[in-house]
Amino acid sequence: MVTTTVTETDKMKSFEELESTVRSYSRGWPTVFAKAKGYKIWDTDDNEYIDFFAGAGVLNYGHNDDSMQEKMIDYIRNNGILHSLDMGSTSRKEFLERFKEVILEPRNLDYKVMFPGPTGTNSVESALKIARKVTGRDTVISFTNAFHGMTIGSLSVTANSFKRHGAGIPLHHAVSMPFDNYMEDQDSIAYLERFLEDGGSGVALPAAIILETVQGEGGINAARMDWLKKVEELCKRWDILLIIDDVQAGCGRTGTFFSFEPAGIDPDIVCLSKSIGGAGLPMALTLIKPEFDQWGPGEHNGTFRGNNLAFIGAIEALDYWKTDDFSHAIKEKGSSLHKGIQAIIDKYPELKATHRGRGLMQGIAVAKPELTDVICSEAFQRGLIIETSGPQDEVIKFLPPLIIDEKGLQQGLSILDESIKAALNP
Amino acid sequence: MVTTTVTETDKMKSFEELESTVRSYSRGWPTVFAKAKGYKIWDTDDNEYIDFFAGAGVLNYGHNDDSMQEKMIDYIRNNGILHSLDMGSTSRKEFLERFKEVILEPRNLDYKVMFPGPTGTNSVESALKIARKVTGRDTVISFTNAFHGMTIGSLSVTANSFKRHGAGIPLHHAVSMPFDNYMEDQDSIAYLERFLEDGGSGVALPAAIILETVQGEGGINAARMDWLKKVEELCKRWDILLIIDDVQAGCGRTGTFFSFEPAGIDPDIVCLSKSIGGAGLPMALTLIKPEFDQWGPGEHNGTFRGNNLAFIGAIEALDYWKTDDFSHAIKEKGSSLHKGIQAIIDKYPELKATHRGRGLMQGIAVAKPELTDVICSEAFQRGLIIETSGPQDEVIKFLPPLIIDEKGLQQGLSILDESIKAALNP
Amino acid sequence: MVTTTVTETDKMKSFEELESTVRSYSRGWPTVFAKAKGYKIWDTDDNEYIDFFAGAGVLNYGHNDDSMQEKMIDYIRNNGILHSLDMGSTSRKEFLERFKEVILEPRNLDYKVMFPGPTGTNSVESALKIARKVTGRDTVISFTNAFHGMTIGSLSVTANSFKRHGAGIPLHHAVSMPFDNYMEDQDSIAYLERFLEDGGSGVALPAAIILETVQGEGGINAARMDWLKKVEELCKRWDILLIIDDVQAGCGRTGTFFSFEPAGIDPDIVCLSKSIGGAGLPMALTLIKPEFDQWGPGEHNGTFRGNNLAFIGAIEALDYWKTDDFSHAIKEKGSSLHKGIQAIIDKYPELKATHRGRGLMQGIAVAKPELTDVICSEAFQRGLIIETSGPQDEVIKFLPPLIIDEKGLQQGLSILDESIKAALNP
Amino acid sequence: MVTTTVTETDKMKSFEELESTVRSYSRGWPTVFAKAKGYKIWDTDDNEYIDFFAGAGVLNYGHNDDSMQEKMIDYIRNNGILHSLDMGSTSRKEFLERFKEVILEPRNLDYKVMFPGPTGTNSVESALKIARKVTGRDTVISFTNAFHGMTIGSLSVTANSFKRHGAGIPLHHAVSMPFDNYMEDQDSIAYLERFLEDGGSGVALPAAIILETVQGEGGINAARMDWLKKVEELCKRWDILLIIDDVQAGCGRTGTFFSFEPAGIDPDIVCLSKSIGGAGLPMALTLIKPEFDQWGPGEHNGTFRGNNLAFIGAIEALDYWKTDDFSHAIKEKGSSLHKGIQAIIDKYPELKATHRGRGLMQGIAVAKPELTDVICSEAFQRGLIIETSGPQDEVIKFLPPLIIDEKGLQQGLSILDESIKAALNP
Repeated sequence: MVTTTVTETDKMKSFEELESTVRSYSRGWPTVFAKAKGYKIWDTDDNEYIDFFAGAGVLNYGHNDDSMQEKMIDYIRNNGILHSLDMGSTSRKEFLERFKEVILEPRNLDYKVMFPGPTGTNSVESALKIARKVTGRDTVISFTNAFHGMTIGSLSVTANSFKRHGAGIPLHHAVSMPFDNYMEDQDSIAYLERFLEDGGSGVALPAAIILETVQGEGGINAARMDWLKKVEELCKRWDILLIIDDVQAGCGRTGTFFSFEPAGIDPDIVCLSKSIGGAGLPMALTLIKPEFDQWGPGEHNGTFRGNNLAFIGAIEALDYWKTDDFSHAIKEKGSSLHKGIQAIIDKYPELKATHRGRGLMQGIAVAKPELTDVICSEAFQRGLIIETSGPQDEVIKFLPPLIIDEKGLQQGLSILDESIKAALNP
Repeated sequence: MVTTTVTETDKMKSFEELESTVRSYSRGWPTVFAKAKGYKIWDTDDNEYIDFFAGAGVLNYGHNDDSMQEKMIDYIRNNGILHSLDMGSTSRKEFLERFKEVILEPRNLDYKVMFPGPTGTNSVESALKIARKVTGRDTVISFTNAFHGMTIGSLSVTANSFKRHGAGIPLHHAVSMPFDNYMEDQDSIAYLERFLEDGGSGVALPAAIILETVQGEGGINAARMDWLKKVEELCKRWDILLIIDDVQAGCGRTGTFFSFEPAGIDPDIVCLSKSIGGAGLPMALTLIKPEFDQWGPGEHNGTFRGNNLAFIGAIEALDYWKTDDFSHAIKEKGSSLHKGIQAIIDKYPELKATHRGRGLMQGIAVAKPELTDVICSEAFQRGLIIETSGPQDEVIKFLPPLIIDEKGLQQGLSILDESIKAALNP
Repeated sequence: MVTTTVTETDKMKSFEELESTVRSYSRGWPTVFAKAKGYKIWDTDDNEYIDFFAGAGVLNYGHNDDSMQEKMIDYIRNNGILHSLDMGSTSRKEFLERFKEVILEPRNLDYKVMFPGPTGTNSVESALKIARKVTGRDTVISFTNAFHGMTIGSLSVTANSFKRHGAGIPLHHAVSMPFDNYMEDQDSIAYLERFLEDGGSGVALPAAIILETVQGEGGINAARMDWLKKVEELCKRWDILLIIDDVQAGCGRTGTFFSFEPAGIDPDIVCLSKSIGGAGLPMALTLIKPEFDQWGPGEHNGTFRGNNLAFIGAIEALDYWKTDDFSHAIKEKGSSLHKGIQAIIDKYPELKATHRGRGLMQGIAVAKPELTDVICSEAFQRGLIIETSGPQDEVIKFLPPLIIDEKGLQQGLSILDESIKAALNP
Repeated sequence: MVTTTVTETDKMKSFEELESTVRSYSRGWPTVFAKAKGYKIWDTDDNEYIDFFAGAGVLNYGHNDDSMQEKMIDYIRNNGILHSLDMGSTSRKEFLERFKEVILEPRNLDYKVMFPGPTGTNSVESALKIARKVTGRDTVISFTNAFHGMTIGSLSVTANSFKRHGAGIPLHHAVSMPFDNYMEDQDSIAYLERFLEDGGSGVALPAAIILETVQGEGGINAARMDWLKKVEELCKRWDILLIIDDVQAGCGRTGTFFSFEPAGIDPDIVCLSKSIGGAGLPMALTLIKPEFDQWGPGEHNGTFRGNNLAFIGAIEALDYWKTDDFSHAIKEKGSSLHKGIQAIIDKYPELKATHRGRGLMQGIAVAKPELTDVICSEAFQRGLIIETSGPQDEVIKFLPPLIIDEKGLQQGLSILDESIKAALNP
């Protein structure tokens, strides 16, 4: 989140007066956005912004992709089914078939597809439920700085204390373990295993371990592939289900469709949301290995568990994954972004900054957390939308649409450079 | 939910093979739906169905309302912002202003509007959180046969044992009290108050009481206005927040925009979702009295907490409420439906059926629960979409789009009549 | 508990200065007790008091029974084993054999005897654990105004809100149902059964129902035998374990050894403590039907789970039960006490008092709760030890030693009469 | 606990038939004990045993101390008050005054004395409650291999998975952290502090940290004084209450009255039980710093919260602490025991054994856990009572009465030597 020192002008009055104080992004970026295309976004005063935020990972394919627009318009115009819960619909059927063909089969993955409510937290809630049902155990191990959602089940495995406190009730059935590289010199895998094998550790054998391969809200902490592999081995050894929450890091964000592909692991359950819908409409999936798909009909449900118009965007989005070209392009842009970030880090040693992340999910961790909000606020005023991350908002978080071009990347980096300069010399 | 004895044909193969066993509606209505308009829906074989289900209350304004379609197409075509979390957007601004003007002000209601994640359960989760934060208490009183959602917070106040058991963990911080008319001869208000006033009752003073004025999933149980009034008085007397979950009964379903208007009560928090988006896209609101809107920025959040395209439909839907005409029409259709239902009840005494509900949210409770599935299955084969409700699925639930005409109503009732006949004489 | 208006004199200084503010009885009866015999007790100033309190039910056999004294002195002098956890010891062996012979066999009861920690709350904790283990369920149904102990497990099934609040954490896994006669005109059995049979009640099938046949702390509420019988039937029908907490009402307090004998029921688990040790030393038992005695060795333990010196007193106490004489005597004294109480109620109509209880566990419920403390304080000054009970301390509680004679009873009643007169005319 | 391969003879029949399967020690030592004096104990067949068990720490002053016997007999013979809850009594008054004079004042400790129920677990439950009340927080941090009791509150901070599982419900409000030396090369203090300071650690600021300085049941793990000091500093820095559970390690077991004295720390709350009663009768104390003694009267109570006869033994026991002689003697015997243990470790390298503990609380950790039961069983047959400890019972635990003499120590060690030989060469 970004907070700002910019005075909110009259145009924000309706939000201030009518909306709950819980609103957050409209505080840091105090304007009314009107239009968007690709990696650009315009407000009602026709100010143009480069988007390094991408709807917190929802707009991997950019704003208003031409072919998605066309297909959605056609669908509406032809009286396509807009809402149908989990009734059979043409869009649902096509999505299922294409997802299998384009995503699952080429990766030798054999998941049953569950449509939970259309949000990430709902996918996580469904994952936790089925893991507990299948194993008959209640504890779930999550990690420091994890973010899995704000409904009580997901919040229980979310680490942020401000968010947890908001529950108003104690949160249980979860144990927080150190994520990769959490403590220098600590072998977090050995530590975790010790707690599992010791009957006197105080931690029960869990139903599942849930993790993000790159922690988006927690500070762009990217686990090493080797660490992921070891977690998987440990899960297999102890008969624990491995849940990958790929809501933010998935759908190509790190360079492959699933963020865990380079680790060569095979999670038991995968949570997808955000960019899975392609165009930015609410949609979520829970992928479950067939042997663990032990739901009774309707045992987890939700009114919006099949958002047909989102399926239309989702089907178009799958086209990006028919060949490896998109994946290669993301990796190249990732390298370019990494270089640009490193240049900034080198240029401003007073930031004592370090690089984080991989793919197009990167960050600059700054030693003085109070600076990041100022920098992002300066960036907004210069036409760049970028937010912060981490428990103290100490990380500037780069999350541009995956379809951004080199020019856009450099333009954004250049604005950030100026913004840092301004922040350091107020 | 409806289960069926109809053999699922080849066209359902993709769902059977690719989708999780959790799927439910595609079992009871084993076909692939392709198009919909108003109160009608067609499958890929061009079979036409009358819709007495309305997306479980999402499609109060019918399928593909002309003006909603037009506005959504325009919005997409003009590169309108599709996704923006809770950043300011033109559609968000307009919705807020129009909602105030058309809904809140004429009813002398002064709520702050919160956009939680775009589903009913998320609205309920946010309501429970803020009630607990504001009061510093953790218990919430809910009622027998309540349904408030499937994420752990909402599930805790949901009564259905099959759904609760699916949590895989014990559900806490909730006390289930008897809903209006739960026990013959029991004064449930006196009982509830006794538990509040007695320091030895074993029930702590709650943060909130949450209820549906008409329980949609729990069996179309309609509370009396007098009972609602008494619950409100009791809340005021004990300094307890009153949360009305109007997700299913709201947005005109019972004849007024909010289902609680005839009771003359003034809830502290109101949950809206389902038809609030107008066209069937995911959207939810939590309405909070200003004095209880004590959220910190981002204390409850969610990626899809502002579904801009849904706002476009929602704005159009508000037009229905500019005058009282729509409300009057619903009440008239409600009377007509009631008559039709009563005629059926009288015609088939062997059903030992009773009438339930109000507005266009009605039901037939049948003494032999095993009959309802057969009846609904027969109805489906004759071109009527209608589902069951209640802990034993013992209620046939009438939830037609509010825009249905008299002809549609009678057609549906007539199909139901034949279906009952067929079910009773197999 | 009794609070007092008497000024605490210097002799209480050590307690005031050195002991925690949690101390309670030394406030209401501000003196230092030095000696006791039978139903009398003397303080350091040689003031004599009639004891209508009996250590809250621990001293059913009176203070310092001659033969118990003798046997305990012999045991100590002969270097008997004073502490041995659950190792075999001569006193443990003898107690087990005598308890079987004198108590279990004549009543056709076939319980395995568990020695939990030596307090009532520990017996309750063990009962809840084994009921949950055996059934695999977690919920336990308890009743309004129940008191089962102060450790977290027992406190969860205790109803008093002040005590519950003291936990500092929310208390779960328990559902509070209305005790017999809790609401006028309510059939609490029908209500309870409705909650069990309705899959939409919001209450899961419980592991156990726990109850006191006469609620000692909750206001001397005596369940009718017929009600107890119905609870048992309902437990059998639903495969729920029935736990009778006979810690206060057991050991002859109501006229039979177990308080539930007149109901003809056969509980699955019985908790005993207080007077089971005979002489007032800490001791507790949990009686478990053999088919439910599924503990692993040491699965529930506790350092003081075999108090050998208490066994010595307990063995002597069993002698009281060799014939029916003791039981008859209690019933006669109970009638006499009842008459005396009724006379007082009739004499002071301004108290608007009602009678409660049975056996030698009786009470006077007074319409103005603020009066009871004054009355008990006046009684103390006149040489009678008697305390209050109920959620508002609205009940004067008669709990004399069972060995009291008619003279003692009348003397105590006479003091109470004067104390009421004084309280009403201050 | 010790399990045995010895055939239980007829004399154990009553226990087998009448007692619950939960019994444990009577399985490992299958005989009926009849008498005990000092550090010796005899069964009904007049077999003599050296006691290296001391009632799991209850009998620090040995069995049947002459002067305690005399005082208890006098007290009983003179009709002393045996039971009085927390009413004022002469024995209670004297104990309070003497405890202040002999224990608190010389150590500059200023605690209020609370009498919870007479067991260790009750003291722990009261400590957790008051810590939560005072801080308004619910989480308590405990450590790997901690043992704090078996009632639900204490069990929540107990680490052993077998014991925890016995709860039958999930245990909450506790976080298990690594005890000193739990992981080689891990700085457990740095780890703990990182979790406290990081708002994204997933662990809330706790109400308290609870620990045993030497973990008795968890494997005789002795924390370093420096580690204890750091935990205290960390508690002060973060405003967390420090609770020392000195139930087993206190009352002189490690050489000083409180086990934490050598660390120079000043805990906020101290739990005492076991040997505090002197003679082996149930008794417990909770010591609370005056500023945290914020109980309401009776907010935590319990029938046996003042065991007067135990006070008589406790007063006598305090005499041992009037000078430093007793403390010095324990340390000398501790050194002697350490030497003897080391000699055994050196003599049997095949055990791959290591030494643990301090004072007269020591252990031999054996690489093959399956051996310890055999060794203890052999020892029993040779006249030595000694038990095992640790999550896998991998530690032979030496807990002789503190009054044992050198001869007794050597005799016990010698029997153990033979038992190991026998176990290794069966």
